[in-house]
Amino acid sequence: MNLKKTTFTIQSVARLAQVSASTVSNVLNGRESRMRAETLARVKQAIHDLGFQPNQAALRLKTGHVPMIGLLVPSIANPFFGILARGIEDVAAAQGYGLLLCNTSADAERERNYAQAIMAQGVRGVIVGSALQAQEHLQTLIERGLAVVNLDRTPSQRDLPIDFVSLDNRRAGSLAAEHLLSLGHRRIVFVSAPLRSVNRQARLDGAREACERSGAAFEYHIAEVPAASSGPVSELGFNAACTLHQQHCDATGYIAMNDMVGIGLMAGLRHCGYSIPEDVSVIGIDDLFLCRFVSPTMSSVRQPLDEMARAAVERLLARMKNHDEAPQQLIFQPELVIRASTAAPRNG
Amino acid sequence: MNLKKTTFTIQSVARLAQVSASTVSNVLNGRESRMRAETLARVKQAIHDLGFQPNQAALRLKTGHVPMIGLLVPSIANPFFGILARGIEDVAAAQGYGLLLCNTSADAERERNYAQAIMAQGVRGVIVGSALQAQEHLQTLIERGLAVVNLDRTPSQRDLPIDFVSLDNRRAGSLAAEHLLSLGHRRIVFVSAPLRSVNRQARLDGAREACERSGAAFEYHIAEVPAASSGPVSELGFNAACTLHQQHCDATGYIAMNDMVGIGLMAGLRHCGYSIPEDVSVIGIDDLFLCRFVSPTMSSVRQPLDEMARAAVERLLARMKNHDEAPQQLIFQPELVIRASTAAPRNG
Repeated sequence: MNLKKTTFTIQSVARLAQVSASTVSNVLNGRESRMRAETLARVKQAIHDLGFQPNQAALRLKTGHVPMIGLLVPSIANPFFGILARGIEDVAAAQGYGLLLCNTSADAERERNYAQAIMAQGVRGVIVGSALQAQEHLQTLIERGLAVVNLDRTPSQRDLPIDFVSLDNRRAGSLAAEHLLSLGHRRIVFVSAPLRSVNRQARLDGAREACERSGAAFEYHIAEVPAASSGPVSELGFNAACTLHQQHCDATGYIAMNDMVGIGLMAGLRHCGYSIPEDVSVIGIDDLFLCRFVSPTMSSVRQPLDEMARAAVERLLARMKNHDEAPQQLIFQPELVIRASTAAPRNG
Repeated sequence: MNLKKTTFTIQSVARLAQVSASTVSNVLNGRESRMRAETLARVKQAIHDLGFQPNQAALRLKTGHVPMIGLLVPSIANPFFGILARGIEDVAAAQGYGLLLCNTSADAERERNYAQAIMAQGVRGVIVGSALQAQEHLQTLIERGLAVVNLDRTPSQRDLPIDFVSLDNRRAGSLAAEHLLSLGHRRIVFVSAPLRSVNRQARLDGAREACERSGAAFEYHIAEVPAASSGPVSELGFNAACTLHQQHCDATGYIAMNDMVGIGLMAGLRHCGYSIPEDVSVIGIDDLFLCRFVSPTMSSVRQPLDEMARAAVERLLARMKNHDEAPQQLIFQPELVIRASTAAPRNG
């Protein structure tokens, strides 16, 4: 790397190319249409010869924009969002965009404040990964030109007319239930954090419908959120298992709203004396890599996170280029992954 | 929120306050010392009355800096770095700084390219969480004014004179070994990914020294890195368990270089037919929340990640304010956390 590169200015280029500084500025900002080909070539040659790196702050003043996108997630400490963020950052970086990370604790107020703050920094697009029930808090920012793509959010009728990249969460819930039903389970419980997210509701609805179709008993358990909502979501699954045990829950099949809850649920069930899958079966949703490393390995319903991350970034960049395009809904299909945590019930 | 807020310009403020635009600009950029108190008050009142939000891009041109810091980690898909990033972002946001996330795959070339790219965006500080053996690749950027804090990196003599926030990794290794020794284990193996990071080396050295002091047999196993190095690090622990089993390893005590490797190691040992802790004991390092949810729960050596994240951000912001301060080394002490994966050996 040449240390001196950054000491060159637009004026240095202008002198070498024998043009005015504003001509160099026009080249740097892509305003070349009214320029003579010979002049353009001379400026480009001078930029190349000096190894000139334009001052990004100066360029930015022209457009007010920065080559960055924002990512709003409840908490990057949750491995689900870490995996998603890795996929997003890889694709964004390949397109020349940096990724601004914001942990919102799934709080609408924080989400809006973050979106507003990064917009003030010249960021013109965000991927929202929180799936909050309502989105009114983002409406004014969208009207002011912020491009927003919902990732991991089941579209609902109350939503703003914006882009969605999501799993078919209802289908994911029904796949999980159908798997337990096919093994012979007739008493199934769905363990979820409070239904503040549309995804959880859709997964629950899918599971309930599958059970109703088969005539199996179905109940759902909404776990209490731990005091520190930034804490690991697995805690919630652990606590749910203990509560259900105290309530003499007689379900043999457990569906966790997602894998991180499922991992805690399995730990809690073991803690209460259940063997998995001998006494009870457990299935998660997401198919995080951790499913393969817990004991027993956990059955799950896969969502193709890398493909979804790629689609979200591409959708966002397209939207930033053309705000007037009709919003799109890209819905990915889930896939059942059977491992050791699900089996036929003892008396099934 | 008032939609019209952003349509006001510096000129709007100037008209209302009956001053020139450059006077408003001086206030916005903190150049108030030569201004009459009455003028200053009038400008501030006008800014308040209009709810004026200055254009950050215009402000930035003055300093060339943005209120953001960078975070370079091997992969945010690794829950260890997700937890660290959450702690860092919380502290940075409270100080008014955004966090730019970069996944470097622990590759020096990528690390340098990222640091250079975000520096070109006006970012003037990065936290480096990769602990690569060498750091020459960052030297030119530091000379050009980039503030760098090493987080989770054991300082070595070859290091640049910059700030460090780290666990006492040698002590962490010795705590893990001393715990196994105190249970009666005399054949101990240390399972690590290739020793590209100074942390791994320090943890290994600490474990070896503790074993040598006690006269116990000690070996270490360097696992192969999976083809996709962005893959989950737990895979590596799983493969190491299978390799050691094939080699008829007779160790009864296993130390994993970190918890994510330990979780994979436990899964691999189970896969090869070992019971934990009846046949073999396993201890990790880091004490991630996942230790409490695997089966059996995993003993570990805790590093205080939230405190370290806070210290790293505070150190970085101090360094950005004063580049000439003497570099500091903040070394945090590890703590043994005993769970169900460690017990006395069968014949101990």
